[in-house]
Amino acid sequence: MIYRSLTALLMSVLLGACSSESGDATASQQVAKDKPNIVIIFTDDMGYGDMSNSGHPTIKTYNLDRMAAEGQKWTNFYVAASVCTPSRAGLLTGRLPVRSGMASSQRRVLFPDSKGGLPQTEITIAEHLKSLGYSTGMVGKWHLGHLPEYLPTSNGFDSWYGIPYSNDMDMNLDLVASVNDEDWERRHVIHPENPGVHWKNPKSEYWDVPLMQGEEILERAPDQHQLTKSYTEKAVEFIKANKEDPFFLYLAHSMPHVPLFTSEEFSGVSTAGLYGDVIEEIDWSVGQVIKTLEEEGLSENTMVVFTSDNGPWDIYKTLGGSAGMLRGAKGSVFEGGVREPTIFSWPGKIQPAIIHDIGSTLDILPTASNLAGGSLDYQVDGYDLTEVLTEVEVGPREEMFFYGGDVLRAVRLGRYKAHFYDENREKLDQPWLYDLNEDPGEKYDIAADNPEVVARLAAYALQHEQGVVPVVNQLER
Amino acid sequence: MIYRSLTALLMSVLLGACSSESGDATASQQVAKDKPNIVIIFTDDMGYGDMSNSGHPTIKTYNLDRMAAEGQKWTNFYVAASVCTPSRAGLLTGRLPVRSGMASSQRRVLFPDSKGGLPQTEITIAEHLKSLGYSTGMVGKWHLGHLPEYLPTSNGFDSWYGIPYSNDMDMNLDLVASVNDEDWERRHVIHPENPGVHWKNPKSEYWDVPLMQGEEILERAPDQHQLTKSYTEKAVEFIKANKEDPFFLYLAHSMPHVPLFTSEEFSGVSTAGLYGDVIEEIDWSVGQVIKTLEEEGLSENTMVVFTSDNGPWDIYKTLGGSAGMLRGAKGSVFEGGVREPTIFSWPGKIQPAIIHDIGSTLDILPTASNLAGGSLDYQVDGYDLTEVLTEVEVGPREEMFFYGGDVLRAVRLGRYKAHFYDENREKLDQPWLYDLNEDPGEKYDIAADNPEVVARLAAYALQHEQGVVPVVNQLER
Repeated sequence: MIYRSLTALLMSVLLGACSSESGDATASQQVAKDKPNIVIIFTDDMGYGDMSNSGHPTIKTYNLDRMAAEGQKWTNFYVAASVCTPSRAGLLTGRLPVRSGMASSQRRVLFPDSKGGLPQTEITIAEHLKSLGYSTGMVGKWHLGHLPEYLPTSNGFDSWYGIPYSNDMDMNLDLVASVNDEDWERRHVIHPENPGVHWKNPKSEYWDVPLMQGEEILERAPDQHQLTKSYTEKAVEFIKANKEDPFFLYLAHSMPHVPLFTSEEFSGVSTAGLYGDVIEEIDWSVGQVIKTLEEEGLSENTMVVFTSDNGPWDIYKTLGGSAGMLRGAKGSVFEGGVREPTIFSWPGKIQPAIIHDIGSTLDILPTASNLAGGSLDYQVDGYDLTEVLTEVEVGPREEMFFYGGDVLRAVRLGRYKAHFYDENREKLDQPWLYDLNEDPGEKYDIAADNPEVVARLAAYALQHEQGVVPVVNQLER
Repeated sequence: MIYRSLTALLMSVLLGACSSESGDATASQQVAKDKPNIVIIFTDDMGYGDMSNSGHPTIKTYNLDRMAAEGQKWTNFYVAASVCTPSRAGLLTGRLPVRSGMASSQRRVLFPDSKGGLPQTEITIAEHLKSLGYSTGMVGKWHLGHLPEYLPTSNGFDSWYGIPYSNDMDMNLDLVASVNDEDWERRHVIHPENPGVHWKNPKSEYWDVPLMQGEEILERAPDQHQLTKSYTEKAVEFIKANKEDPFFLYLAHSMPHVPLFTSEEFSGVSTAGLYGDVIEEIDWSVGQVIKTLEEEGLSENTMVVFTSDNGPWDIYKTLGGSAGMLRGAKGSVFEGGVREPTIFSWPGKIQPAIIHDIGSTLDILPTASNLAGGSLDYQVDGYDLTEVLTEVEVGPREEMFFYGGDVLRAVRLGRYKAHFYDENREKLDQPWLYDLNEDPGEKYDIAADNPEVVARLAAYALQHEQGVVPVVNQLER
């Protein structure tokens, strides 16, 4: 703790002193409010290693780097699932998706033909904060049910602008077939050896995905080049329109999920090609949000959280991102699938530091609730991280459960992680054990030398599983 | 370029404004000199991914992070070889080690029984800068010949404190055998499956390596726990003693080469275990050098370069470091073996930025020469990087030749890299080709789709090889 305080001091000398100098001018403009604003910026399929401050050698993320230097970079921060729908259910409810029926081993996510969605019995961050007096807005990708009763505006959000599921859904098969020169059958499915030209040189008209405002479809097959920019504009508008109230903004980018698109301004700016361009436009978007908060005098009363829904979709090769030194990718319960690039920022309130403690998107609801003066009288799987954020105290989270669909495949307890299934989802006779402190890349199985640790984690997993009550599966409806 | 300038502006708002505020007080103390001081901090076997700002999730390097934020982080920066001796020969001469006979495919480095060393015909950075009026000091590991005629003091350094080769050499076989419980024969050699207890719990007395001052042996088997700290103290002493002259300091840490040691103060400080402790002590050392320069009013007249001699020694598992998302490690010409964590710092002179251009330790001599007002009238393989450092201009280096011993195994030209040998050093019938901009991890061979690029790189390699004049091999003597 002393070491951390010293480093925090160092960072405050480096950065804090600077902001206090220039901060005087804006301090009087700060809107005095008891309840801080909460902004979540969520990306889609971005990898752990895709920021320059998390090691990418050819992508530049100056805004995220600045946010990390001035705030807290969490390096052991997990999502609730390694694919989209259950990950988002976990984020918004603070509960493992298996508890809400939003996880399935048969259908990994919701599809345009799905009938299910987030049950009304679940309480989202938006609903909870709304009950505490917040204005609530969402911009971007939802993916928790596209029938009217499941949309964001039915789940606590005052407003929503975005698409109801992934940007690669509602594919216009006839149109795409016509642009693929040959072997369409092989190409139109995801194929690692040869992703079709519609992935490499995508056109928005290949996907009939709807762009929506509230419960209304504005258009189908919107120009996806504009998505990151228009989401950003809508987010900025929301902040400006709600600056007098405490607000909650959930900005869920559709990028960098394939098909990849950028606006003209970001085409070719990155050394890393199209994927890098997309990340650098997202980085610009982060900068726009931060800048708006600063200009509106809101930054010292606003917590911004940046993270991603799951690891990179590596089967798309260079169109997917990178998990850095972590093993595995999207769809896997190895670290690359579930550990995300994560930054918390809140000038003047959050102590600048690098945090190695375990955290999760599951913790955002309890943390936001505490900051907003709320209380939770039902079962959540998250922890309140406030004291880590503001005092750099030791984090409350010791465990993380890793589900593939609705099956518990691995568990982390402290520094150790036990896998009960191999990468092909075959049950292991003997679990694999990794020390994630010394071996974050999960390279060296140490189960044979540590049978008591394996036994402890297996018992812990079993105890957890016995406490999970079966519910209707929403993804299989 | 516009984009870069904007980001540099952003960084200067963030950091530069801060230092200019506090800089006023020290500006008048700045020692006015035409020739800037040059400091090279060189680590041993540190991996590309071992800094927090290059993505390590359980190692904290706040001083290096600060140095990167205030200076330039170079993310495509190469050493001249993926093992110690030739890499250091390349750094100090600006010439590929094959030109000086300091590369061999039979003996990878110099050993205590070696008779060779860096030929007197070679001109080191120290010799060159000395001719331009510099004071020159070295602290740390040499490894370019331990016979008197090859020592640092015979190669342009006014002073030297350190060890002549690696800290795992001169092993006391009898002593080490006595501490290994069984199967000594199998353990005392490097063995990935079972590194002996002398690696996991090393004692300094296991290695009779000499600690030297100039040409004198101070002691054998020095307390290696103190190496990083004592090197740092000697470096600080040198700076203070030479602050009136332009000086060149080469601080070559023995760590994090196995056996790993830290001082008591750093034992257990890192989340990542012993390897992390060692890196965090090196980070502390970097901070001490920077702090000394600041306190002595020298920082605005001193360029500090931080990098490593080659990639992590991954056969030692968690006792070795991590190359992050890069493929390969020490001894390999894949990126993980040759691309190093690299930062240039020079407050007020270097433009803060992340640089994706290709750079190399080979470029440090020409750059230092230019900054010191020198000229080079002989063949070097390096480029002057001054304009990238000070103006963020496009870098002059387009190519990099990757030798394994004295055999050219791969070449990079622009974004492309061709491998002529596989990872087992077998000649490939068809070279492998990677696009390092989009695929820095060298995962996706694109040779089949780009035969003209392969041919261009092969021709380029051949032309280079034809220009290399055979010389006496110093490592095989």
